[in-house]
Amino acid sequence: MSYDVRTRLSELRREFHRHPEPGWREFRTTDRIVAELERIGVDEVAVGRECLASDARMAVPDEEEIEPWLERAREAGVRDDILELTADGHTGVVAVLECGEGPSVGLRVDMDATAIEESTEAGHRPADEGFRSEHDGYMHACGHDAHISMGLGTLEAVRDSDFSGTFTVFFQPAEEISGGGKAMAEGGYLEGVDDLFAVHLGLGQPTGTVVAGVEKPLAMAHITATFEGASAHAGTAPNEGANAMQALATAIQNGYAIPRHNDGMTRVNFGSVEGGTASNVIAEEITLEGEVRGETTALMEYTRTELERVCYAAAEMHDCDVTPRVISESPSVDSDPELRDLVGSVARRTDGVTRVVDTAELGASEDATYLMERVQESGGLATYVLVGTDHPTNHQTPTFDIDEASLEIGVSVLTEAVLECERRRS
Amino acid sequence: MSYDVRTRLSELRREFHRHPEPGWREFRTTDRIVAELERIGVDEVAVGRECLASDARMAVPDEEEIEPWLERAREAGVRDDILELTADGHTGVVAVLECGEGPSVGLRVDMDATAIEESTEAGHRPADEGFRSEHDGYMHACGHDAHISMGLGTLEAVRDSDFSGTFTVFFQPAEEISGGGKAMAEGGYLEGVDDLFAVHLGLGQPTGTVVAGVEKPLAMAHITATFEGASAHAGTAPNEGANAMQALATAIQNGYAIPRHNDGMTRVNFGSVEGGTASNVIAEEITLEGEVRGETTALMEYTRTELERVCYAAAEMHDCDVTPRVISESPSVDSDPELRDLVGSVARRTDGVTRVVDTAELGASEDATYLMERVQESGGLATYVLVGTDHPTNHQTPTFDIDEASLEIGVSVLTEAVLECERRRS
Amino acid sequence: MSYDVRTRLSELRREFHRHPEPGWREFRTTDRIVAELERIGVDEVAVGRECLASDARMAVPDEEEIEPWLERAREAGVRDDILELTADGHTGVVAVLECGEGPSVGLRVDMDATAIEESTEAGHRPADEGFRSEHDGYMHACGHDAHISMGLGTLEAVRDSDFSGTFTVFFQPAEEISGGGKAMAEGGYLEGVDDLFAVHLGLGQPTGTVVAGVEKPLAMAHITATFEGASAHAGTAPNEGANAMQALATAIQNGYAIPRHNDGMTRVNFGSVEGGTASNVIAEEITLEGEVRGETTALMEYTRTELERVCYAAAEMHDCDVTPRVISESPSVDSDPELRDLVGSVARRTDGVTRVVDTAELGASEDATYLMERVQESGGLATYVLVGTDHPTNHQTPTFDIDEASLEIGVSVLTEAVLECERRRS
Amino acid sequence: MSYDVRTRLSELRREFHRHPEPGWREFRTTDRIVAELERIGVDEVAVGRECLASDARMAVPDEEEIEPWLERAREAGVRDDILELTADGHTGVVAVLECGEGPSVGLRVDMDATAIEESTEAGHRPADEGFRSEHDGYMHACGHDAHISMGLGTLEAVRDSDFSGTFTVFFQPAEEISGGGKAMAEGGYLEGVDDLFAVHLGLGQPTGTVVAGVEKPLAMAHITATFEGASAHAGTAPNEGANAMQALATAIQNGYAIPRHNDGMTRVNFGSVEGGTASNVIAEEITLEGEVRGETTALMEYTRTELERVCYAAAEMHDCDVTPRVISESPSVDSDPELRDLVGSVARRTDGVTRVVDTAELGASEDATYLMERVQESGGLATYVLVGTDHPTNHQTPTFDIDEASLEIGVSVLTEAVLECERRRS
Repeated sequence: MSYDVRTRLSELRREFHRHPEPGWREFRTTDRIVAELERIGVDEVAVGRECLASDARMAVPDEEEIEPWLERAREAGVRDDILELTADGHTGVVAVLECGEGPSVGLRVDMDATAIEESTEAGHRPADEGFRSEHDGYMHACGHDAHISMGLGTLEAVRDSDFSGTFTVFFQPAEEISGGGKAMAEGGYLEGVDDLFAVHLGLGQPTGTVVAGVEKPLAMAHITATFEGASAHAGTAPNEGANAMQALATAIQNGYAIPRHNDGMTRVNFGSVEGGTASNVIAEEITLEGEVRGETTALMEYTRTELERVCYAAAEMHDCDVTPRVISESPSVDSDPELRDLVGSVARRTDGVTRVVDTAELGASEDATYLMERVQESGGLATYVLVGTDHPTNHQTPTFDIDEASLEIGVSVLTEAVLECERRRS
Repeated sequence: MSYDVRTRLSELRREFHRHPEPGWREFRTTDRIVAELERIGVDEVAVGRECLASDARMAVPDEEEIEPWLERAREAGVRDDILELTADGHTGVVAVLECGEGPSVGLRVDMDATAIEESTEAGHRPADEGFRSEHDGYMHACGHDAHISMGLGTLEAVRDSDFSGTFTVFFQPAEEISGGGKAMAEGGYLEGVDDLFAVHLGLGQPTGTVVAGVEKPLAMAHITATFEGASAHAGTAPNEGANAMQALATAIQNGYAIPRHNDGMTRVNFGSVEGGTASNVIAEEITLEGEVRGETTALMEYTRTELERVCYAAAEMHDCDVTPRVISESPSVDSDPELRDLVGSVARRTDGVTRVVDTAELGASEDATYLMERVQESGGLATYVLVGTDHPTNHQTPTFDIDEASLEIGVSVLTEAVLECERRRS
Repeated sequence: MSYDVRTRLSELRREFHRHPEPGWREFRTTDRIVAELERIGVDEVAVGRECLASDARMAVPDEEEIEPWLERAREAGVRDDILELTADGHTGVVAVLECGEGPSVGLRVDMDATAIEESTEAGHRPADEGFRSEHDGYMHACGHDAHISMGLGTLEAVRDSDFSGTFTVFFQPAEEISGGGKAMAEGGYLEGVDDLFAVHLGLGQPTGTVVAGVEKPLAMAHITATFEGASAHAGTAPNEGANAMQALATAIQNGYAIPRHNDGMTRVNFGSVEGGTASNVIAEEITLEGEVRGETTALMEYTRTELERVCYAAAEMHDCDVTPRVISESPSVDSDPELRDLVGSVARRTDGVTRVVDTAELGASEDATYLMERVQESGGLATYVLVGTDHPTNHQTPTFDIDEASLEIGVSVLTEAVLECERRRS
Repeated sequence: MSYDVRTRLSELRREFHRHPEPGWREFRTTDRIVAELERIGVDEVAVGRECLASDARMAVPDEEEIEPWLERAREAGVRDDILELTADGHTGVVAVLECGEGPSVGLRVDMDATAIEESTEAGHRPADEGFRSEHDGYMHACGHDAHISMGLGTLEAVRDSDFSGTFTVFFQPAEEISGGGKAMAEGGYLEGVDDLFAVHLGLGQPTGTVVAGVEKPLAMAHITATFEGASAHAGTAPNEGANAMQALATAIQNGYAIPRHNDGMTRVNFGSVEGGTASNVIAEEITLEGEVRGETTALMEYTRTELERVCYAAAEMHDCDVTPRVISESPSVDSDPELRDLVGSVARRTDGVTRVVDTAELGASEDATYLMERVQESGGLATYVLVGTDHPTNHQTPTFDIDEASLEIGVSVLTEAVLECERRRS
């Protein structure tokens, strides 16, 4: 790979890093991807509602939460035609390269950021080298900035190769909130895809390692529960009203204490909470946001059912009402051994790859599983590839960063894998 | 009392009712009081920082919370000179009537509203008759609108009487958050006051009842506690980080379970909560607001100390940090029997008063106690008078309302009490 | 009072102190009281089932809990006729002194001990002077030993006086567990009683103080709740079974957090717990014992209803069953002012009494209220008298003790009160 | 295998089933094993303290808990010499068969029962066929009765074979409470053992299945925590004392909520609780028994450390003291592949074996790991063999039972494995 390509991969990643946007609000990100695609030259670009099944979107924020990001995008000069296609939570892009006869191969990357304030401390490279997040309270703390860069890089490399077939790259929005996978899976562009790759950097794997296909991504459901009681004056009528605060505390304590399951790994978390009005008023309404996960879909559903019971009983204990709602979810899907083997053999001959792992557990959730599931159900193959990268701290922490050398490794492995799909069939 | 006066008392009350403003943000309210005082004609009007000890203010909201109210006040045409005197949380007014030789008598009323969304349902008179709150999410749910009206009405009635002496009315801001009492007590205008009346409507007493002086207002402290942990990915690193959400739940559950005290009544409440970022991130920071009360200052302090221990232990249990802070507080002060007797005898001969209660427990907190305490310490007398009013539902509920017939009763009793202060000394 | 009498009062009290017996198991205590009554010489002695309404007994322990105490009593030489009358939880004695024409006056004392291990530390007089409890795990930690002594002493003093009328002393069993009051109230010997005194030492009042009649004894209900789940292996099937331990913890936390009531004092306590089998088995069954109290019967019932809801919701949360049961209870009854005044005037002229308080709140529960209620409902009068005693530590603590000088004061006041009942009517 | 042998295996198992004895109290069980060994004829029998490292015993019950079982054993005619060797918690037997030159092979079985009341319902074969537990509240709910039978059967079969070498069977006490493994591992008879087999029936595997060697037995620690507060009268002094009941509930709730760990499976359970005295007394002392487990020793230690912090913080929150103590523990040790393969190949040619699984996770804890660890550290090999058995309900439930056909399968596999150890070396 030329010096220029390496440099562009880093530059692109750093530019996206500076402008993190949360799920369904990736307006500027979409605009920049489209601009790059136009530079590269592809056969078809589908933006926002052109590539999404609108009804299948999940966890779409309300207008009030979207507005400031739209405003910021407008100020940054995002094109009107793109704003029109993406408004109301319809971000995302699909790019298609038609290269004659041959297999239809897909690559899925994600593009959203998370609500974490990026570190300013010395030693954190994005801060030191001037590409720290410019959006207060948000950052690319999971590497999706790099995923976009790799998606674009692979597209360019395939274009420049002698690949014969169709290559489609899915820039999927709203992965962090499990909101976009299903909508993109059902958006039309997955039809006819024979082989699908999804890719993620890091997750504990160092630079040089490639995991050819993960298994057991955690099935996940994102849940909100609003406890509704009745307010009363805490000084003169402590026995009246119905205390949503006590219902909340009971739900949190018992929710975290949902028993482990003998069949495998489960997870419970309550990530945010907000409600009540004043210190002297019995709280009338409090909203709790959380999630459950499981090593299998059944384990996730066990945990979700228990969580719902906990919420109902906590409400009843304090004479409150509650209706836990599933905001978004994603299934657990394993990688296909055949495609995994293809990636493994390609990776073994790639420069910079020092260790190839056939398969590993993901230990996290991913709504790429919706795309993988759809391809598999249509008779195609799918694998979820991990490209190792040295990251100084965990994903989803204020000092998360990647080793940019892994960008080139990722692009090389993915490009070769795409080409191998064609070779294998001929 | 003339038909006109009765009408004006109601009209004023309804106007204030339509424009509720929370503590330290009563810009429009201050402006309207000043306008009425200018209409009535008084000898001195001190506004905002002119009548407050700035450093003694408590629970002052931050700029961000003040700004929208300031903006709204500007749009409503509040005078620039008043905005200047009240900006940065310096609302409130003191009005002085100099009527020659004689005792210095004071009357304290409060003027702030609470963060409760007013009911729109039929049967709720403010909704039916068009004077429901115009500020979403806020309402006069404790009758302070009526208190202002009574303060102005009494001032006008004393002006029109043959009272000889000095009469000062303290329109105190930020009572609901116990923020303004201390600052007004130390603001200078209480010096030399011989007899101080504070007044409240309702609190369970029906129209026609007057309580000459309450005892045992609950001592109170308003407390916030921010639990600070460390974020981590809830799916891939549930054992890392330090979970502020679990610390929170443990604190709430154990806080409400602080033992009752054998010496008398105590109260604990957590009224609002906010924190965390996303459902898949271990919550790093959550803020809890609450309060403790006690029948005596010692009982309040017992409860506060226990609450602090609960917070520290809850944080430690989950490896978090917390520093509970007292935002505002008020002591417990009893009414003076001598002044109570004066009010009782005056009330017994007032039209509309059907029942006089010498003394009753307040069952709530009041930072009027700061003013009462200061007068008592300077050798004066103070009493806290309850004027009954039929209220369809409890204070601090969305359908709270008053019987406006009680406005006239209140003004009559207070005016006569002021006059009696002079007579008694002569 | 003679030196001999004073000495005998102390000696008796110390003997009873050495042999504490819990409710419905006061076999030896009953035997010793009967022996003293025979020494004193009274007109009628009714023992156990002779003086109790058997069906009205509450909180009767099961055979297994009674047996060891019966056995111990047999070994201590308790008479067979007494064992026969008291077996199966029918302890207690009524003694009647017929002294001709005149009013029927009653005195009620209690006789049971509590399950507290008495202190052995130096400075604890019963330990220092050799009359510490000889029954491990039990002690007279509430002064009932002294109450028996005062009952016997008053009986002897009335016998030796010129009292004309009927004097009945009720040695009531099982007060600590609120089990005996109702059964003795309905046992027949209260019929025709014109004036009833109940007496208690201490409760924070020092030696020399007499409270002529308490008001607001706390209404009380003693409750047990058995949480029934399903066992499973905690290592291999943590998600199976139904965890009674988690239901228990949820009930305890939320039970203590039942809101205070604006109408007055309430109490909640869980005093003992037992259940589960082994550390590696999900707990199938756990029993929790507790109580609720209220300043009025209505407040007690509010708290009981809330506690029941807490238990049901806690069980439901963890898929367990529970049926909270009321084991025993007692109402709240005030002393009659007329009889209170009589005690007050008598006390004021009694040697050793330095302070007479007309009335005070009890701050505790007492099933003497059943006897008082019955007398009042039949047209008689009743008062509950407190005789102060210096006690080094609180009631129900391992180092509780009394000042024996108060025994003589109590006997003097009670004897004079009995005589005054006659005088007043003649 | 002859009809007689099959019959004897069942008869023996049923006899042990009728007389379940908990850990360190297997007096009758020890006596019966010795009698059978004498019938079989072995070269050395070491009983109780002869085969245990006394100081390495864990979870030894106190005298009071041992006494009734000793008494019952005496009444059942257990020999005096055996009682002497086993008294004070020194149960267990080691039997040695010296058969000339050859390898030293060991077999470890366990022998204790659990505190579960056996079902009496129809369809539960032990109840139907008259061999239900005769010890109320205890039963062989984990199959150790069958393990003893298999140990004796294997011994007899090896004796009757042409095995050349040393064969030692370890009848280990107190497995359920993880109390005996370490003491037997250090008791001397494991010295020189080249190959060690441990065996367990069932655990979800059906009759006909053999698992040649388990991996990842859960590391375990059994913990007790006594919360020590201060008693006070719940009615008159609710604010005094220090409430062990509240500390308990806080510990249970937060203990079950200890976060899952990303490295693998963990377990937390609180299995039993007892404390407090009376419903009207603030609980002074409550003891909680629980356990933690982990897929690795490190994971167990993570959970234990967190549990300790939870206990300390819960105590501090309520002004109580606590010192969590580890009563017993066991490490996690994997089976050796070489010995596992030996068992697998033997099992494949054994009658009745329909399926051989090379390795499976145990999903439970086992203190056989102490013996395995010691052999491995000395250069020998060890494997933990599962012999499938159809069991109608889970281990540790009142209706647990086994399919006795599995006894013969187990004896055949184990005997052949012992012989194979010799063959392999020659």
